[in-house]
Amino acid sequence: MRVLLTGFEPFAGELVNPSWEVASRLADRRVSGCAVMAERLPTVFGASIACLRTALERYRPQAVVCLGEAGGRAAISIERVALNLDEARIPDNKGQQPVEIPVEPDGPAAYFTTLPVRAIVAKLLAAGIPAEISRTAGGFVCNHTFYGLMHHLGQATPVRAGFIHVPYLPEQAVRHPGKASMELATTLRGIEMALEVLGLEQFSVAQTTTGRPATRQ
Amino acid sequence: MRVLLTGFEPFAGELVNPSWEVASRLADRRVSGCAVMAERLPTVFGASIACLRTALERYRPQAVVCLGEAGGRAAISIERVALNLDEARIPDNKGQQPVEIPVEPDGPAAYFTTLPVRAIVAKLLAAGIPAEISRTAGGFVCNHTFYGLMHHLGQATPVRAGFIHVPYLPEQAVRHPGKASMELATTLRGIEMALEVLGLEQFSVAQTTTGRPATRQ
Amino acid sequence: MRVLLTGFEPFAGELVNPSWEVASRLADRRVSGCAVMAERLPTVFGASIACLRTALERYRPQAVVCLGEAGGRAAISIERVALNLDEARIPDNKGQQPVEIPVEPDGPAAYFTTLPVRAIVAKLLAAGIPAEISRTAGGFVCNHTFYGLMHHLGQATPVRAGFIHVPYLPEQAVRHPGKASMELATTLRGIEMALEVLGLEQFSVAQTTTGRPATRQ
Amino acid sequence: MRVLLTGFEPFAGELVNPSWEVASRLADRRVSGCAVMAERLPTVFGASIACLRTALERYRPQAVVCLGEAGGRAAISIERVALNLDEARIPDNKGQQPVEIPVEPDGPAAYFTTLPVRAIVAKLLAAGIPAEISRTAGGFVCNHTFYGLMHHLGQATPVRAGFIHVPYLPEQAVRHPGKASMELATTLRGIEMALEVLGLEQFSVAQTTTGRPATRQ
Repeated sequence: MRVLLTGFEPFAGELVNPSWEVASRLADRRVSGCAVMAERLPTVFGASIACLRTALERYRPQAVVCLGEAGGRAAISIERVALNLDEARIPDNKGQQPVEIPVEPDGPAAYFTTLPVRAIVAKLLAAGIPAEISRTAGGFVCNHTFYGLMHHLGQATPVRAGFIHVPYLPEQAVRHPGKASMELATTLRGIEMALEVLGLEQFSVAQTTTGRPATRQ
Repeated sequence: MRVLLTGFEPFAGELVNPSWEVASRLADRRVSGCAVMAERLPTVFGASIACLRTALERYRPQAVVCLGEAGGRAAISIERVALNLDEARIPDNKGQQPVEIPVEPDGPAAYFTTLPVRAIVAKLLAAGIPAEISRTAGGFVCNHTFYGLMHHLGQATPVRAGFIHVPYLPEQAVRHPGKASMELATTLRGIEMALEVLGLEQFSVAQTTTGRPATRQ
Repeated sequence: MRVLLTGFEPFAGELVNPSWEVASRLADRRVSGCAVMAERLPTVFGASIACLRTALERYRPQAVVCLGEAGGRAAISIERVALNLDEARIPDNKGQQPVEIPVEPDGPAAYFTTLPVRAIVAKLLAAGIPAEISRTAGGFVCNHTFYGLMHHLGQATPVRAGFIHVPYLPEQAVRHPGKASMELATTLRGIEMALEVLGLEQFSVAQTTTGRPATRQ
Repeated sequence: MRVLLTGFEPFAGELVNPSWEVASRLADRRVSGCAVMAERLPTVFGASIACLRTALERYRPQAVVCLGEAGGRAAISIERVALNLDEARIPDNKGQQPVEIPVEPDGPAAYFTTLPVRAIVAKLLAAGIPAEISRTAGGFVCNHTFYGLMHHLGQATPVRAGFIHVPYLPEQAVRHPGKASMELATTLRGIEMALEVLGLEQFSVAQTTTGRPATRQ
C-alpha cells in the first residue's frame, strides 16, 4: 500500500515542527506493508492545499495521512472531521489570517475522515502511547489542509485519508510552561502504528468509503 | 420574531441543568423584539429530537436556539457546527451510550449553525460576559439534538437556528473542584443578549441561509 | 469583633481588582458580629506591607483577612500558608520583580494561616459557592503581603489572620479566553460568609494561636 | 559526593511509579561525580519517613534527592518547600488518609529545600527538558516525606536535600485522558542532570545551609 505522509514546516516562531520531524523520518521507508512517501507542506493557507494536490498527483497514494502540530495537547489526536471553515487566531507563514471564510465556497460543511479512527486509537493505547479521538482540527492551516484533502479526493474515492495531530516535542515545551509534550521517538512509534493499522486493514476490513460513520447497526 | 428556546433536563447525576434554568425563565417573555417560547427536552438520544420536532411544529418559530450544559467551560459557547455523529462517554437518561454512529444515516457530515456567531460573541464580550466560539458541540445529546434540528430544518429554510452551551452554575461547580462556573443571572443576561442580536438582525441584515459561512470577500 | 479586610489596587494592566471591589463594599459595615474596616493596599513589594502595618496600628483589629486576585482560579481560595519567598513572574506596580529573595531575611520559612480554613470552605460549599483550600499563595505581592502580615503579628498573637484569593470578575475574564470567573455578588457573599465563620468562632471555638495545624488527635 | 536517591512504590491503583523507575536505574551508578545510592520508599504516611531515616543512617549521604510522582504535571518539578501538613485526598497504601494534621507536632511550619532549584531548572530547560519550580509538593506522602527529610536533617546540616516531582509515564497517561506525560528516558536524563548540578556545586559554590533563600543582595 502506497501511503503519502505529510508534515508542516515550523510556524508561530517555532524552530521545528514535530509533524515534519516524524514524516521525514518515515520517508521512503516501508512500515508494515505501507510504502511511505513523505511531503513537507508550507504552513500557508491555500499553498498547503496546492502543494498537497501536486503530491497526490505525483505519488497516487492509496492512503493519505496528514500530520500537524497541536501545541498543548497531551496525546496523539486522530481527527474525526474537517470543517469548511478558515478562522485563524494567528497569521500563517505568509501573514494571512482568514476569519470565518470557507475553505471551498461550494464544498459541504464538513468531511469525516476515512481513517479507522477507533482502531488506531485502540492500538496506540494498548501499546502505552497516549492517543485520543479529536472532534476539531481547529481553524488554522491544519484543518484547512485536511478539508482540502478530503474535498479533492471526493466522496467516491477508495483512498483512505485523514489528519493526525501530534504534541509539542519536549524541546518546544520548555518555552511553553505547563504545556504537555511527547518525545519524538514516542510520536514516531505512534504514527508507525497508525500506518500498521492501515496496512493490515487493506487485507482484512471491508472499507467504508462514504466519508462518514457506518449506519446504526 | 417568534423564537423557540430549548433547555435540557438534568443529567449525569446533576440536580439542575442551567440550560433549562435559563430557558424556563425566558418562557413566554418578550426580549427585544423576540417572543420567546420555551421547551424542555429530555437528555435522551432520539427522544430529544422527537420532542424538538413536535415543538417546532407547534410553535412554528422564526428562530431556534437550543441551550445545553457544558460542564467545565468558562464561557457561553456559541456552537459553530453540528456533526452527524453520536459518540457518548456517559449514558444518557435512558441508559443509551451510542458509539460512532450517525445521527441521521443519510444526512451530510455536518451542518453549520445559521446563528450570527461572531455578532453574538462580540455583543456579549462588549457587555463583560465571557463568551466564545466553539467548534465542537461534543458527542452527546447536545450535538445530537443540534444536528437533528439543522437536519429537520434543511438547507433552504429561512429559520435561523443554532446551539449555545452554557457553563455550570456555581452550586453545581462546588461538586466539581477546579471547574469554572457562571451565575444564572449572568448566563441569563448573555442569552437575552443573543436573542437581542437575533431580534435586531431580522430588520437590518441580509440573511445567509446556506448553512455555512459566506464566501471569501 | 473588629475585622480588617484589605484588597489590592489593580495590576498587570487590569482596570479593576476584585479583591478591593469586595473589601470596599464591606467597609464600615457590620457582618454577623464583625465590624469591618477596609484598606486598599498598593500592589507593590514592600509598600504593601508598610501600608498594612499602618492599618493594623490604626484599627487594632481582632482579625485580619487580606484579599487578593487569583486570575484563572475558579473558586474562592483560602490560603493555607505564607512563604518567606518573593519570586515574581511579572513586575509589580512600581516595576519591581524580585527573584528568589526572602520577604524577611530573619523570618522562618513559612507561617500557617490562623483562619479556620476548613470551616470557611465547608460553609461556602454548603451555600453553593465554589471554594477550596490552596497550598500556595504564589510568589507575587499577595504572598509577600500575607507573609508580612503573619510575621508582624507573630506567633503569640490572639489576632486571627489569613489570606483569601478570589477569581477574576466576568468583565476581566472576557480578555482572558478560557479563564474562569466569579460574579462580584457571589464573591462578596462568599467573603461575608467567611466573616460569619470568624464572627461565630469568637464565641464558640477554642482558638489555636500557634500558627500551625492542631496536633494529631 | 554520595547521593541518596529515593523513589516511591506505586499507589492509587497504578502499576508503576516513575519515581522508582528513575531511582532504580541510577542505583549504584556514578553520575558526574555523584555516587548514587537508591532506596524505594513505601507510599505510606509515617512508614515512608521511618524507611528514609534508616537509609540516611545506613548511607550517610552528602546529598538527598527524593523523587515522587505528580500525575498530570507536564514538567519535572523541583519543589521549593515542604509543609508541616498532612492532608490527603486519597488513602495511602495502608488506607490512611490524614486531614489537617502536622507531620511533626513540634516542627516549624515549613522547610525550604537546600537544592539549587534555579540552577537545576536552568540546566534542564537549556537541554530541552521541560522543568519548573513548584511551590507546593501537595498534601500526600510526597510532601510528608519531604518534610520528614528536612526536619530530620535539621537547619545546621551540610547535607543538601530536596524533592523532585516527575510526570506520569506515557503508559500511565493512557488511562488518564488529557494528562501530560514524559518518557522514562527523558525523566531519567533530567534527574541525571540535576545530580550533575549537585556534583559540580560541591566544588564551586559557597553553600547556603540555612534552609531558606539567600538574603536580598
